[in-house]
Amino acid sequence: MKNSRISVSLTRLFFGLSLLIGAFSAIRADADEGMWLFNDLPIKHLQEKHGFTPTPEWSDHVMKSCVRFNVGGSASFISSNGLVLTNHHVGSDTLFKLSNENNDYYNDGFLARSLDQELKAPDLELNQLINIKDVTAEVNASVDEGLSAADAAKARRAAIANIEKKASDESGLRSNVVTLYGGGRYHLYQYKKYTDVRLVWSPEANAAFFGGDADNFEYPRYCLDACIFRVYENDKPAKIEHFLKWSENGPAENELVFVAGNPGATSRIFTVDALKFQRDVRLPYILDFIRRREILLQQFALQGKEAARRAHDGLFGFQNARKARVGMLQGLQDPAVMAAKEQAEADLLSKIKADPNLRKYAGAWQKIADVQKRRAEQQGKGVNLNEELFNIAQQLVQMAEEDKKPSAERLPAYQDANRASLEQQLFSTAPIYKDLEQAILADVIARMVEQRGGDDDLCKQILAGKNPVDRAEELISGTRLEDPEFRKSLAGGGLTAVDESDDPMIQLARLVDSEVRAELLVTDELAEIERQAYAQIAEAKFATEGTSTYPDATFSLRLAFGPVVGYTEKGKQIPAMTDIEGAFKHEQAHEGQEYFELPASWHKAREEQKINPKTPFDFVCTADIIGGNSGSPVLNKNMELVGLIFDGNIQSLTADYLYSDRQARSVSVHSNAIRDAIRYIYDAEALADQLGQ
Amino acid sequence: MKNSRISVSLTRLFFGLSLLIGAFSAIRADADEGMWLFNDLPIKHLQEKHGFTPTPEWSDHVMKSCVRFNVGGSASFISSNGLVLTNHHVGSDTLFKLSNENNDYYNDGFLARSLDQELKAPDLELNQLINIKDVTAEVNASVDEGLSAADAAKARRAAIANIEKKASDESGLRSNVVTLYGGGRYHLYQYKKYTDVRLVWSPEANAAFFGGDADNFEYPRYCLDACIFRVYENDKPAKIEHFLKWSENGPAENELVFVAGNPGATSRIFTVDALKFQRDVRLPYILDFIRRREILLQQFALQGKEAARRAHDGLFGFQNARKARVGMLQGLQDPAVMAAKEQAEADLLSKIKADPNLRKYAGAWQKIADVQKRRAEQQGKGVNLNEELFNIAQQLVQMAEEDKKPSAERLPAYQDANRASLEQQLFSTAPIYKDLEQAILADVIARMVEQRGGDDDLCKQILAGKNPVDRAEELISGTRLEDPEFRKSLAGGGLTAVDESDDPMIQLARLVDSEVRAELLVTDELAEIERQAYAQIAEAKFATEGTSTYPDATFSLRLAFGPVVGYTEKGKQIPAMTDIEGAFKHEQAHEGQEYFELPASWHKAREEQKINPKTPFDFVCTADIIGGNSGSPVLNKNMELVGLIFDGNIQSLTADYLYSDRQARSVSVHSNAIRDAIRYIYDAEALADQLGQ
Repeated sequence: MKNSRISVSLTRLFFGLSLLIGAFSAIRADADEGMWLFNDLPIKHLQEKHGFTPTPEWSDHVMKSCVRFNVGGSASFISSNGLVLTNHHVGSDTLFKLSNENNDYYNDGFLARSLDQELKAPDLELNQLINIKDVTAEVNASVDEGLSAADAAKARRAAIANIEKKASDESGLRSNVVTLYGGGRYHLYQYKKYTDVRLVWSPEANAAFFGGDADNFEYPRYCLDACIFRVYENDKPAKIEHFLKWSENGPAENELVFVAGNPGATSRIFTVDALKFQRDVRLPYILDFIRRREILLQQFALQGKEAARRAHDGLFGFQNARKARVGMLQGLQDPAVMAAKEQAEADLLSKIKADPNLRKYAGAWQKIADVQKRRAEQQGKGVNLNEELFNIAQQLVQMAEEDKKPSAERLPAYQDANRASLEQQLFSTAPIYKDLEQAILADVIARMVEQRGGDDDLCKQILAGKNPVDRAEELISGTRLEDPEFRKSLAGGGLTAVDESDDPMIQLARLVDSEVRAELLVTDELAEIERQAYAQIAEAKFATEGTSTYPDATFSLRLAFGPVVGYTEKGKQIPAMTDIEGAFKHEQAHEGQEYFELPASWHKAREEQKINPKTPFDFVCTADIIGGNSGSPVLNKNMELVGLIFDGNIQSLTADYLYSDRQARSVSVHSNAIRDAIRYIYDAEALADQLGQ
Repeated sequence: MKNSRISVSLTRLFFGLSLLIGAFSAIRADADEGMWLFNDLPIKHLQEKHGFTPTPEWSDHVMKSCVRFNVGGSASFISSNGLVLTNHHVGSDTLFKLSNENNDYYNDGFLARSLDQELKAPDLELNQLINIKDVTAEVNASVDEGLSAADAAKARRAAIANIEKKASDESGLRSNVVTLYGGGRYHLYQYKKYTDVRLVWSPEANAAFFGGDADNFEYPRYCLDACIFRVYENDKPAKIEHFLKWSENGPAENELVFVAGNPGATSRIFTVDALKFQRDVRLPYILDFIRRREILLQQFALQGKEAARRAHDGLFGFQNARKARVGMLQGLQDPAVMAAKEQAEADLLSKIKADPNLRKYAGAWQKIADVQKRRAEQQGKGVNLNEELFNIAQQLVQMAEEDKKPSAERLPAYQDANRASLEQQLFSTAPIYKDLEQAILADVIARMVEQRGGDDDLCKQILAGKNPVDRAEELISGTRLEDPEFRKSLAGGGLTAVDESDDPMIQLARLVDSEVRAELLVTDELAEIERQAYAQIAEAKFATEGTSTYPDATFSLRLAFGPVVGYTEKGKQIPAMTDIEGAFKHEQAHEGQEYFELPASWHKAREEQKINPKTPFDFVCTADIIGGNSGSPVLNKNMELVGLIFDGNIQSLTADYLYSDRQARSVSVHSNAIRDAIRYIYDAEALADQLGQ
């Protein structure tokens, strides 16, 4: 199932569209590697290497101070009255949705000087993690050994749905079972949901995204990639018990800092065959798609200023996704990297084969290899019409069908426990620009015809005798799905309303539905085979390497850590921190280049000497992060906010499948820069006074 | 064999990288369709529809007034003292090669106020067609019926080489056999060559390419896409007998005009299977590559002003190529278009099968279908390292090997008759920017590894243990091939020099050479099967539809024609002509957008009222053109220059496989605009006085 709003938004994070298998990896004892579970922190390592022991109170407070943005980012509570700090590029989805032809909050920034000026986001859902529980035994008990992969997938899905529903009903919390170690463990995560989220402050795009695509993934950097929301309950600012205090001075060089956030996905447990599938099949395919969409959005933007505004949200996300994946692929194409992975795998396999208790796991690798072959054959052969209005149509069509079944048997998105979140998205009042959607739909139809060939029966039916451009025009101009009320009426009317609808997009979604469902069955089956195989590999690794490991990222809360240190690049020492003065120098060095002009507010503050040029701006540390961590708070041992993660450097782009602290660094905005910019550049004294209070 | 300088340059033309099979098509009696051979003009049609009879003197004068730019464009002589008029975007290859960090003639324009200021192009070759002769019988006589396709290809190549060599030796002219009607006819084309070509005048890029990629293929347009060279002989301006007079007023609306130029390639004879191969396999593949290169060049340009200058020549070409192919693919994906092609093919086949004399041709279609299957299997599996310095290395390696053979047995590029042209390119002093080449090489290596997989043996050898980026750095920093003197010394040293060279790029070219040659054999074989099959189809069409047809474009001189008329689009009448005033209005409508700012020289001329705002600027006519026609003169019945082809509108992008005069139009600069801009905007009185004189 695709949820366009989520999947598109994910491209905005710096490893967005990423791989979907959770897994794990062994670490060097001395390195600060790892995205650790809050219920299994590496306490021994922290004690031995850093002389720090996180107490249960420490981890509980940090965990509850964190917030997940369901559009695909991280954030934290930074005040008792509901302020939430995240990146401008995480908030940008909402900034765009709140903007229009006349008010461009994304580019021009925003400041609410009083509560009544705060702008309600049309469809944001924030999650605060409250509780984690291991439910592995319960999940696995439902999957009998003799089941086929397809039946096992079904049984597992039903078991998970039941656990989630029971937990949700009992607690009122959003309850999701997370698959860890690729299938080795299942944990129940329970969240408090906030769905009334309002925009408080955002800087101009030229401050937040200074240097644009050129500087993205580069360091040194000079970005104020921050914005602030506030959560409300009962139409009043929520009272927040767990929030981060604001550090007075931020981090010192070499100081150990912590990153608490929701890394999206890594693939460190991947077998060599799975990595080669990514290298030779999946990443090249995704990159072709990303470049295609980049060009399409660029072309759309050429039509004028308003067109550019509409296209840019997507464009920046795709640029970012492309740059990340080019770096990932470069690493996978490095013969030395793959040779190291091959060696590690051979070593593990020989240990397993030598041990009579582990020998039973040796077949897992071949099962995963077989799955990759089937995925390669399937690639580009499916129904691939990912466009906003089509996705809405598809959700309505599927929801009508699924609602006839008991909740546990439905596709996960349509189960009762997920219904409120689904409706938050599906009935969103965020604007949908039909001109842009038409360009995208024409292209996804054209692409599907390219992939399956113009003689393909389903393609012919989709085209209905027209070329992709004319057909998209017909569909987009004919549909009424841009109207949330129309969507509600269709949803309310159930299967009858959908079946009888003359909306051409609904009809298109109905046309392809049986094939989409057939595809989903295969996807589920392959995922189940992998889950079972990776569960075996995980057990084998636990047995041979000990259990002190972390699972691959799963867009759930993790703790990473490492010191604030620079690095050496081409013989040159790159300092850990930049300052405000450096931003103005950087602007001068790139004079006349797009995205290298600091906003007028900054120039004014400098001229009036309101901002200290020596204020630290961005900094790097060795914490192990990946896309999804955008917006994560960086904190010190005292649980004070010292920074805000917004990027990784170019050397960190292999983090998907390996960690290194040689040159790879995560990049943060310094807490002083955020505080002082709000106070002195944006003249928002009242807001500045609330930070950390 | 790839010649990078030619193939890269071809992307600059608006249908550049196009399909390589020549063929033909039947026409409606009343339409002005066709790219006609100068030795077989449609005299009857011109007489009957337009009351005009081109005399032998008329066609001889027009033919000899035309000039082919071997980088891939068309042009004409416009004065007795060697002035040559073409497009800015055809001359841009040379403008870039003459420019450097300090003198940017591409962007800033150029004017030589005296002969000694004219700038010699480093590697331009211009060809003036002198003579055409049918050599079909001679070519076919050399190909015995019993030969395998591979042997037939070899025999045909040798026969053509011998014809060319004999003709070249006897006349001193460049002599090339052109394959027409996909293999139905072979004509010998003989050219006078000009290799001392100097830049005289060029406007600023903002005047020539006003509206940039956004306006490309659009109409109405406002582009002064023109520049002027001069050919020299013995270091003096060449004396030119056949040149075009300059029309006093240019064309009137509805006036019949002629376009004489070198359309690159069309595929109107293509069978349905061949078109489907283009639709489902070839065009999607090429488009992925083009978008990839666009993004790469954009990224390179982000590094700064000089990087942008270096990247832009290629970038504009790829943007152009992409836009053209998106339009072509859209047409091929139109079920109605393909259904019409299928119907026409079925009709022809049923006529053939009903006629005992033609029945023998019926198998031709299946042969072509089989070739497409083999091409689809081969696609992306070859050696694909198309980068300037690698291409030079490959030419040196192959030349050394080929020179051991008699001329007729060599690969065509290395035969004696082509040697001078080859060396003109190979020893060019045009600058090669190693930073840009490194980015390109890293990407083509990465792409080849993607296509063949990282476990491919040849890929492993190419990578030599490094990732593509590091390997490209090693190759580019290690090679000395950017130095023309080094190239000459290697070429002079023959096989020994090449075999013993420690230049890493030469070694890379040697590494892949045997596979490249094996690929060439297959390519030749498939092309020969197609030639034989299309020759049969051509005979069948001659027999059923008469011989009054034109062959598909082959980058050789053709005559097209049609009236100057506007068209209707979305219910709106698009006028045939624009004027200078419209350019300023267009600028205003797109205020602040890149590429929509007219140069200072234009604003000055307007403020000083030196240029009449009512001067006609660009115009459209229905003449049948395609990429390669860029720079073609547009002339009236009196052989006077009235315009300069520079584009086709978006509706003409299906011209590759079908002609239409409903909305499809070719787009020209009006002769008045060129003349008056030179005189009044660029203050080049002396040059203006020479036009047409």
